[in-house]
Amino acid sequence: MKMKWIRDEDFIRGNIPMTKFNIRILTIGHLAIEEGDRLLDIGAGTGSISIEAALQGAKVWAIEREEEGISLIKTNDKKFNTNINITKGCAPESLPYNSFNKCFIGGSGGKLKEIFQYLDEYLEKGGILCGNFITLSNLNEFMALLKKHEYKDIETHLIQSAYMDRTGLMKGENPIYIVKGVKLND
Amino acid sequence: MKMKWIRDEDFIRGNIPMTKFNIRILTIGHLAIEEGDRLLDIGAGTGSISIEAALQGAKVWAIEREEEGISLIKTNDKKFNTNINITKGCAPESLPYNSFNKCFIGGSGGKLKEIFQYLDEYLEKGGILCGNFITLSNLNEFMALLKKHEYKDIETHLIQSAYMDRTGLMKGENPIYIVKGVKLND
Amino acid sequence: MKMKWIRDEDFIRGNIPMTKFNIRILTIGHLAIEEGDRLLDIGAGTGSISIEAALQGAKVWAIEREEEGISLIKTNDKKFNTNINITKGCAPESLPYNSFNKCFIGGSGGKLKEIFQYLDEYLEKGGILCGNFITLSNLNEFMALLKKHEYKDIETHLIQSAYMDRTGLMKGENPIYIVKGVKLND
Amino acid sequence: MKMKWIRDEDFIRGNIPMTKFNIRILTIGHLAIEEGDRLLDIGAGTGSISIEAALQGAKVWAIEREEEGISLIKTNDKKFNTNINITKGCAPESLPYNSFNKCFIGGSGGKLKEIFQYLDEYLEKGGILCGNFITLSNLNEFMALLKKHEYKDIETHLIQSAYMDRTGLMKGENPIYIVKGVKLND
Repeated sequence: MKMKWIRDEDFIRGNIPMTKFNIRILTIGHLAIEEGDRLLDIGAGTGSISIEAALQGAKVWAIEREEEGISLIKTNDKKFNTNINITKGCAPESLPYNSFNKCFIGGSGGKLKEIFQYLDEYLEKGGILCGNFITLSNLNEFMALLKKHEYKDIETHLIQSAYMDRTGLMKGENPIYIVKGVKLND
Repeated sequence: MKMKWIRDEDFIRGNIPMTKFNIRILTIGHLAIEEGDRLLDIGAGTGSISIEAALQGAKVWAIEREEEGISLIKTNDKKFNTNINITKGCAPESLPYNSFNKCFIGGSGGKLKEIFQYLDEYLEKGGILCGNFITLSNLNEFMALLKKHEYKDIETHLIQSAYMDRTGLMKGENPIYIVKGVKLND
Repeated sequence: MKMKWIRDEDFIRGNIPMTKFNIRILTIGHLAIEEGDRLLDIGAGTGSISIEAALQGAKVWAIEREEEGISLIKTNDKKFNTNINITKGCAPESLPYNSFNKCFIGGSGGKLKEIFQYLDEYLEKGGILCGNFITLSNLNEFMALLKKHEYKDIETHLIQSAYMDRTGLMKGENPIYIVKGVKLND
Repeated sequence: MKMKWIRDEDFIRGNIPMTKFNIRILTIGHLAIEEGDRLLDIGAGTGSISIEAALQGAKVWAIEREEEGISLIKTNDKKFNTNINITKGCAPESLPYNSFNKCFIGGSGGKLKEIFQYLDEYLEKGGILCGNFITLSNLNEFMALLKKHEYKDIETHLIQSAYMDRTGLMKGENPIYIVKGVKLND
């Protein structure tokens, strides 16, 4: 049986920042990943969200522009036996021509507008779009585009977390915004 | 098919405080709920964690001392068709005499010591114990007991979250500590 | 002697939300209030920042559009003997025609652009402008205007705080952004 | 004139962690530093709180056990012309035999009990004791001692802050607990 809820230390990691456990799990939760979902992961980074989503039952397409990221996704895909479709390239030009019911944006390469246009066509009605943001400017552009493209049930969450290290010290993580919306227009 | 990742507004709620979505999902994640798990939920409150865990595939035993909580758990159990074993009573005296591989403590009624003694017997080796804490005194007692009873892989997370309301205002939630440990002793 | 560092419970308060102690003190700190400063407080609300700044040695002009706010500022001004210049009205049309070396914006009434134009004339070179924001849209507009008007030493702080109530429960406050910049253009 | 509200970058810093601006100013605020206060700073570290308190008008005694800290305090004391009494040594044995009306504890060297006994004698009635804590164990011991020694008006604040770096990324700071109490017993 494939185990879900992968811990950070079980991923093979490089120098690319990886979405940590708490944010990864919250993202999976807001995407409401179910068995049989088709998830597009744009800016997949190390692929940690792709891998977890696959272990939770989704069929995943991951796109990432950095060679190091691609290499890590492939390594983790093999380790966890997740059979992810991995594409090296930039959004929107390298995005696949098939439809999805879930989409996660971890990195946009400054092309959020074009990605939303792509999703107008390829994200299914009722599909969930979720993004994680560490800068206010990307956050704002994403929220504005969700409204412009008439997504519904928009939620914006700010998560500031900290964990206790081995010495008992509480270590703060960077604050992250998790935003989601449901696509209603066709 | 049973849908997972229940939203707060889909639970039938009373006046008892309910663990909100983000904390509920993080708790499920730290408990690493898998199909076939047997989860004991001590101080189940409104039962939102019990319900979500059941929808994620666990067999759940929920214990709660408040009549209103029991009533809500039963109502939600029926609504979501989760078939939870519900017991009205206090820990440890009303805890069941069967073993579990996962245990969540949402409320202890001041009996954490006795609950740990119970778990020495009824939580399986390798089982995960997780608690949510909103007071520092309960948090500290729990962490001390995890060490005393030689739990391993102890993690302590502080989560401060906020969400955007309909007017655009960011509303802060109360900070919550999520603590987990893995039982190694028999 | 006038006592500084007024506690929340010592202000006479109405139904208008008051900037709480921690945020008030951080704001005074980022404004770097010194004896002899001339501070313009735009959208003064209950006047708690005006009062504290005055007790710290500033000469203060407070502008507020709500009658209830004006009444509270007057009452607190009398209680703390701070001799604040209080104007009922909206920014920018009711702003005074004298120059300041510090300016705090607690509320803009949607007129941030016009307020920045006013400050181009009336905030002195080297003067500090500071704002508190509870919505991302106002925060973003303020940051964009700071850049457009070529403010320097811009800092943006996100503060999420919580306090322990009498029962030991940690209660979360709403997250607040404190932003400051130093005016260099004349 | 001595300028208050020193920015982090204006302190001469070494390898010792320095209390950052926001926490330093909140601490000064909770200590309610007024002209003429006599402040004892136990575990002064880099002396940033001692220096700021002195610039705000307090007469300051700083005690620190690390040579590097002592050296930094002396350097900053000279830079800011604050005339602080600096003692190299451990609490409680190196604490001075004069009374204070304010006391800050930044580091206790595991001797909180003994420090409280010392303060029973040397902190004046009505004096304010404030501590900053980054570990839950020290926090809890401090809170327990405040109660045992019958301090009043006890407040516990949790501060999680983040700041925007030059690239627009929000960077989280470690969460810090600021606790204060007022001494009523003689």
